[in-house]
Amino acid sequence: MSIAMMKEQVLAANLALPRHHLVTFTWGNVSAVDRAQGLMAIKPSGVEYDGMTADDIVVLELASGRVVEGTKKPSSDTATHLALYQAFEDIGGIVHTHSRHATIWAQAGQDLPAWGTTHADYFYGAIPCTRLMTEAEITHDYEHNTGEVIIETFRSRGISPTAIPAVLVNAHGPFAWGKDADNAVHNAVVLEEIAYMGIFSRQLTPDITRMQQTLLDKHFLRKHGANAYYGQ
Amino acid sequence: MSIAMMKEQVLAANLALPRHHLVTFTWGNVSAVDRAQGLMAIKPSGVEYDGMTADDIVVLELASGRVVEGTKKPSSDTATHLALYQAFEDIGGIVHTHSRHATIWAQAGQDLPAWGTTHADYFYGAIPCTRLMTEAEITHDYEHNTGEVIIETFRSRGISPTAIPAVLVNAHGPFAWGKDADNAVHNAVVLEEIAYMGIFSRQLTPDITRMQQTLLDKHFLRKHGANAYYGQ
Amino acid sequence: MSIAMMKEQVLAANLALPRHHLVTFTWGNVSAVDRAQGLMAIKPSGVEYDGMTADDIVVLELASGRVVEGTKKPSSDTATHLALYQAFEDIGGIVHTHSRHATIWAQAGQDLPAWGTTHADYFYGAIPCTRLMTEAEITHDYEHNTGEVIIETFRSRGISPTAIPAVLVNAHGPFAWGKDADNAVHNAVVLEEIAYMGIFSRQLTPDITRMQQTLLDKHFLRKHGANAYYGQ
Amino acid sequence: MSIAMMKEQVLAANLALPRHHLVTFTWGNVSAVDRAQGLMAIKPSGVEYDGMTADDIVVLELASGRVVEGTKKPSSDTATHLALYQAFEDIGGIVHTHSRHATIWAQAGQDLPAWGTTHADYFYGAIPCTRLMTEAEITHDYEHNTGEVIIETFRSRGISPTAIPAVLVNAHGPFAWGKDADNAVHNAVVLEEIAYMGIFSRQLTPDITRMQQTLLDKHFLRKHGANAYYGQ
Repeated sequence: MSIAMMKEQVLAANLALPRHHLVTFTWGNVSAVDRAQGLMAIKPSGVEYDGMTADDIVVLELASGRVVEGTKKPSSDTATHLALYQAFEDIGGIVHTHSRHATIWAQAGQDLPAWGTTHADYFYGAIPCTRLMTEAEITHDYEHNTGEVIIETFRSRGISPTAIPAVLVNAHGPFAWGKDADNAVHNAVVLEEIAYMGIFSRQLTPDITRMQQTLLDKHFLRKHGANAYYGQ
Repeated sequence: MSIAMMKEQVLAANLALPRHHLVTFTWGNVSAVDRAQGLMAIKPSGVEYDGMTADDIVVLELASGRVVEGTKKPSSDTATHLALYQAFEDIGGIVHTHSRHATIWAQAGQDLPAWGTTHADYFYGAIPCTRLMTEAEITHDYEHNTGEVIIETFRSRGISPTAIPAVLVNAHGPFAWGKDADNAVHNAVVLEEIAYMGIFSRQLTPDITRMQQTLLDKHFLRKHGANAYYGQ
Repeated sequence: MSIAMMKEQVLAANLALPRHHLVTFTWGNVSAVDRAQGLMAIKPSGVEYDGMTADDIVVLELASGRVVEGTKKPSSDTATHLALYQAFEDIGGIVHTHSRHATIWAQAGQDLPAWGTTHADYFYGAIPCTRLMTEAEITHDYEHNTGEVIIETFRSRGISPTAIPAVLVNAHGPFAWGKDADNAVHNAVVLEEIAYMGIFSRQLTPDITRMQQTLLDKHFLRKHGANAYYGQ
Repeated sequence: MSIAMMKEQVLAANLALPRHHLVTFTWGNVSAVDRAQGLMAIKPSGVEYDGMTADDIVVLELASGRVVEGTKKPSSDTATHLALYQAFEDIGGIVHTHSRHATIWAQAGQDLPAWGTTHADYFYGAIPCTRLMTEAEITHDYEHNTGEVIIETFRSRGISPTAIPAVLVNAHGPFAWGKDADNAVHNAVVLEEIAYMGIFSRQLTPDITRMQQTLLDKHFLRKHGANAYYGQ
């Protein structure tokens, strides 16, 4: 993929955030990676979506974080994106938002359980919430350490980032990812839907249990993997 | 009704779903049946609403499920629709969505009680929630069995699908139906309204009781049946 | 006021309902009265807002309910409107909706207390919820008796319909009124706002008490009555 | 800044309120101050946003409250704005709304705690809720005393109005401020977001604790103060 095309895709994915009501003001960012070239493209920091163009997108080296194209400062969350791409080798796009209902679960410090097929169609189990970051992690290299805590959560709990392409960062908000920037946004939209529904499903039935494992398997696997039969 | 007209009606009903905010992405499908010809028309699987045309609609034989018109794969929920048309002889259209508040009740695994005249104007009693499906039902012929569990719910509880034209599939979401595709969508919109209101009515009054049976009778029967006097 | 002008005002007020998100489909109706001529104008029954014209509005005699102009059937709630105009002599317009949050309080069977100045700016105390209607009241002259139960609620509790221009009909939904049709719609919009806020104010502080009587006086009286100083 | 420019800025900030869904009807007002000239510009009382022009904006002397430009009556909340500008010397714009979720916290009479980085990015600690006003404070100089109670809240609790640019007035609603009118509106939008998220974060985790102080420091200080590194 050419750099120009990568910037266009990242621009389009960023502009999809307000259209899906996932962001207020400039609170959100989408990136994409080109692993062959070792490059990442990401939204600039604190720039309005309205009027944003491909020229505003910043391109960096994946290994070093050095900016190779673009005149603007990259998103303040750039170090988190870089850490995730380095650790999760199969993902191609990442999105971070403060979307209302996913953020509510993050602020509440709780995993979002799989309570229905809407969840199961995209996430193969609960969306994990990270532990609280320590004073040391916040004080030094905060944004990089945000990535490290996400990675630790997936590794220590044995979760595959492909099977569960999202996380809730405690007292912060969600990150979602996917095979490319567009797919990452898609997953962020779904996360917001199930986060909303989860709040009130638990209100109606406080002792709601996890959905049947077989049903979780059925819905996830009919849309993902070798035997998928959903769609054209 | 000609096949062309049935496809147009099914297209229009599908396009009404995003307009009524009942679907995200491609999560929903509407079908209609022509019992004289023994045919069902339904939305294709995983196709965007934006740009959908009547040519995308798939026509199948009601008895066999064999596709007789259309080049796309029919909705993955086709077998559920077929089962419902075969069992519920008086219905002409079916809609399935993951609309937020009806899905919340489905995920909570609870019937939606009749707590007001908005409910009573369209549904003659509680909207039932199905039992959880078994491992065997999920593993083999899952979509067909989803229909079977709905049918079992109505038959075992003595509910008429004409009097209560909707169901909540446990850990999944709602199906609604009606005399045709448009009427099914209408009922799905109402279900979403009463599902929303039910969540917070119960929050305000946790021990809320069913509305008066006489009031339920009055509102349902002034809009439905031989003595209806609502409308022009 | 000419009949033509009354019909235009009633049309405009009815069309304001969907614009303020107070109605779904045809669920709502606004009327106005001309007491000098003894006439009431009201929305027709079950007609879509889209495309409604002044010719659709039905004009009736206030005393007898006899239709004097219009070819359509008047709203099924006409008898309720007539009863309220006859009992509440100072009101000039009435609106009935199933707006979500006011209906939630009605379904919960609870008064909506005055918990803030938004409420106090328009309603001089709690919005009352009627008692449940009896079987006899529902079976015979239901719509007229709906009006009678509202009137009984205000009289038995010593509430002035001018000071509190709205009511919650138990297991049904809200009616609001005002000096004319437009003002009635205005009050219905405010009712929906305070009904929403009341649900979650009480969630945050379950033992929330009534606002200070002095503050209620201050806000209501600075906008209403002889010493009002709000607005131009 | 010329008076004409100040009026344009205040007009633009007022028109931003309905665009951000912070107001219903005319319920809100924004002002700005020019300290060099000793002038304040504010929205007129009870005027619709639709069709409002810079000529409707009223200009007053900050010290005396005397109107120096404009033919309309200034907002009924003018005395509150004047009191705040006089006491909080570093602020340049103020906004008052009855935005739904901030008002819910005000009606509930509770501080809005810092539960996440969305909050920390703009507010350096809990948004305080004032004590209930006394009968004497309401009866005489009510709008001025509303300002006094806000000032008392910040002084008695040792809160800097620059660090926490908003307040919840008990049984009433929010005021927010900033370096100018536009920034005040920005903070009012953020307040509404975190007020919404706070309601449901606490619902999910009733004993939710304050976020880590280090994380609050990190997020507030990366956007504010000498070492800020967010944005371009």
